[in-house]
Amino acid sequence: MSVQKLAAEGLGTAMLLISVVGSGIMGETLANGNVAIALLANAVATGCMLYVIITALGPISGAHFNPAVTLAFALRGDITPGLAVQYVVVQIICGILGVWATHLMFDQSILQSSATIHRSGTAQWSSEIMATFGLLFVIFGGLRSRPEAIPAMVGIYITGAYWFTASTSFANPAVTIARGFSDTFAGIYPGHIGMFILMQLIGVGVAHLALTRLFKD
Amino acid sequence: MSVQKLAAEGLGTAMLLISVVGSGIMGETLANGNVAIALLANAVATGCMLYVIITALGPISGAHFNPAVTLAFALRGDITPGLAVQYVVVQIICGILGVWATHLMFDQSILQSSATIHRSGTAQWSSEIMATFGLLFVIFGGLRSRPEAIPAMVGIYITGAYWFTASTSFANPAVTIARGFSDTFAGIYPGHIGMFILMQLIGVGVAHLALTRLFKD
Amino acid sequence: MSVQKLAAEGLGTAMLLISVVGSGIMGETLANGNVAIALLANAVATGCMLYVIITALGPISGAHFNPAVTLAFALRGDITPGLAVQYVVVQIICGILGVWATHLMFDQSILQSSATIHRSGTAQWSSEIMATFGLLFVIFGGLRSRPEAIPAMVGIYITGAYWFTASTSFANPAVTIARGFSDTFAGIYPGHIGMFILMQLIGVGVAHLALTRLFKD
Amino acid sequence: MSVQKLAAEGLGTAMLLISVVGSGIMGETLANGNVAIALLANAVATGCMLYVIITALGPISGAHFNPAVTLAFALRGDITPGLAVQYVVVQIICGILGVWATHLMFDQSILQSSATIHRSGTAQWSSEIMATFGLLFVIFGGLRSRPEAIPAMVGIYITGAYWFTASTSFANPAVTIARGFSDTFAGIYPGHIGMFILMQLIGVGVAHLALTRLFKD
Repeated sequence: MSVQKLAAEGLGTAMLLISVVGSGIMGETLANGNVAIALLANAVATGCMLYVIITALGPISGAHFNPAVTLAFALRGDITPGLAVQYVVVQIICGILGVWATHLMFDQSILQSSATIHRSGTAQWSSEIMATFGLLFVIFGGLRSRPEAIPAMVGIYITGAYWFTASTSFANPAVTIARGFSDTFAGIYPGHIGMFILMQLIGVGVAHLALTRLFKD
Repeated sequence: MSVQKLAAEGLGTAMLLISVVGSGIMGETLANGNVAIALLANAVATGCMLYVIITALGPISGAHFNPAVTLAFALRGDITPGLAVQYVVVQIICGILGVWATHLMFDQSILQSSATIHRSGTAQWSSEIMATFGLLFVIFGGLRSRPEAIPAMVGIYITGAYWFTASTSFANPAVTIARGFSDTFAGIYPGHIGMFILMQLIGVGVAHLALTRLFKD
Repeated sequence: MSVQKLAAEGLGTAMLLISVVGSGIMGETLANGNVAIALLANAVATGCMLYVIITALGPISGAHFNPAVTLAFALRGDITPGLAVQYVVVQIICGILGVWATHLMFDQSILQSSATIHRSGTAQWSSEIMATFGLLFVIFGGLRSRPEAIPAMVGIYITGAYWFTASTSFANPAVTIARGFSDTFAGIYPGHIGMFILMQLIGVGVAHLALTRLFKD
Repeated sequence: MSVQKLAAEGLGTAMLLISVVGSGIMGETLANGNVAIALLANAVATGCMLYVIITALGPISGAHFNPAVTLAFALRGDITPGLAVQYVVVQIICGILGVWATHLMFDQSILQSSATIHRSGTAQWSSEIMATFGLLFVIFGGLRSRPEAIPAMVGIYITGAYWFTASTSFANPAVTIARGFSDTFAGIYPGHIGMFILMQLIGVGVAHLALTRLFKD
């Protein structure tokens, strides 16, 4: 049963990265320099993928695909620390594998490092706190009010959040690490990954404190 | 319980403004001067946010996030005047806080006033009457026919209404006031706020008269 | 009860035209000559409006907003001929009123006639047969398989059909007549209205013959 | 009963091709050379059509519209080999008829062969394996977790998959063959069809092996 859960987390996270990095490459390639159109494709494709992987895999593993989400559930006692650690390891590894699969599908060198795409500064950092807080708001609010809507809520939230945060809402440490392995539209300079993850963890902390009260029955 | 309701109204209204103002900034920045693409991002991101905040917070506070909606419910006797006043105060304050949070996330000066973006004239005004009427039509029609669809209905209605009204459908006094605090794509010159709110109140009046009859069982 | 039904048909058809003509004007104004972006806004806004008006008004009048749909229901015996005629009259009148309301909202002269926008020829005509057949396919297929999904099905079908028919899928005689009253993006030269309506009626006939068999239990 | 099933498969596949090829022509014609906008219209219109044809026809035939899906169901024993063969024949024939209907609607010569649009190489081929695997993942995951969501899941998955695979996700042998008959945006050089179908069949094989375990209860 645990193997099945880990397989679900791994496959889902890989597919998530394929959608993020693949649609970024496709969008940038076709958009004639109009970055808004590339980002629109990127946002829509990511939201589409999130909806289907959470719907399909939710009953198996809970469909986290995100160490920040796994941590938030661990803080609530909804997943044991031991399983949480396994989830996170699988998410990180399979996120990177997803990026490599994407490079294969788009005829790029498999191994890349994002040398050029800088994402740093207070705007980006505060955006990641907000983005991660918002994601957990959506998940825990949905769990309280309408659990069957969570796949749509998460997909739709992230599609919007690409636009209303300066960082385009990574909100996911495994996604952040994996995107460091791609020197494409969705990439991030590896030296900037640490601060992104720190901000995401702060977002988890804020959400844990605030949402437990807001969503108590 | 009342504190929880007010917290929900405040958080939801702040998140709504983040989606409106943030996606406006992002869209305009990336769209290379093609305003239609910026508005498309603006409309989609706002609709996405509305769907998730109404789904998550509806069971707590009713998910108004809008003094016009609170007034319309008060006219039906669905909320006491005392609580309605508290709702409106919280919506207005937290709407402004949401704008300031957005400015922080996009590296802008926090305090702004929209000096440049004029929104006035009969086209804009009649649009706001229509936009507000339409919003209440959606809410009260949904309440009668399919309450669980209201989050999707409101998000989808507003995404469309950005396009079929000349004013891009503010339809919300708290949003209108807050947008006066941003000199960005979604801003409004403060001197034009008063007429917008007046038109929104007229929309509430028209909706109250017309919809009570249309949607009576 | 009948007055309430007619009010619902009238209001819904007017709102439908506001979405079609309004978003056409807005899209064309903002799209810097990129007609695809204007049409995308047009298609999305129309689909959004259809979803909310069918959800809200369906339980009252059946939410036809379309003489072709009313005729198809009359052929099945689901609506009396007398009420059907009243529906059609109200749809046509209120469609035109919706166009005029849109012109008011967009600072245009109220009374217009579409002198410039020609829509004629076998491509347009065959498109209208297909578009109307497809619309009835969606409605009667939905009635058989999942009635509660019909609002989403119709909104989503029309959003797509803007793109996969050469005529952008009017598929509605009341909409066709009303669009003759607007010399904007969504307009149609009045001399071309007759053939559009004839093709839509042929679509109703084909659908009636084919779908009755396909969707029989 | 079997005739009704085959009629449903034929009509649905024809409508699917109309959406794919028609929106491709429309998008390319209007997008002023911005291929990303054309592809966005193409992706959205295809997803819209998939949602409505699967919802409407699912209860009749299962709504395959795709020999790869029919094969996957046959491998699970959910459809007899005899009926599966009939499904595939009808899908291929009606897919081509759908392309011809589209050419009629867009004033193009009916008979075409895609001489110019080359789709070949490892990027395209690995994309088709992934695209087909993903489609079956969505279908079989949905069957296990939430069958009533499958129409939305498939439509949304394909809308996204246009963007995150280099091939724009044909993922369907009948669609691939039919697109060989159109020298338009959605076309494919006939000499490249064979490898596409081979890759799609490999995708079915991979999915059959992997998903049976992943989605076992």
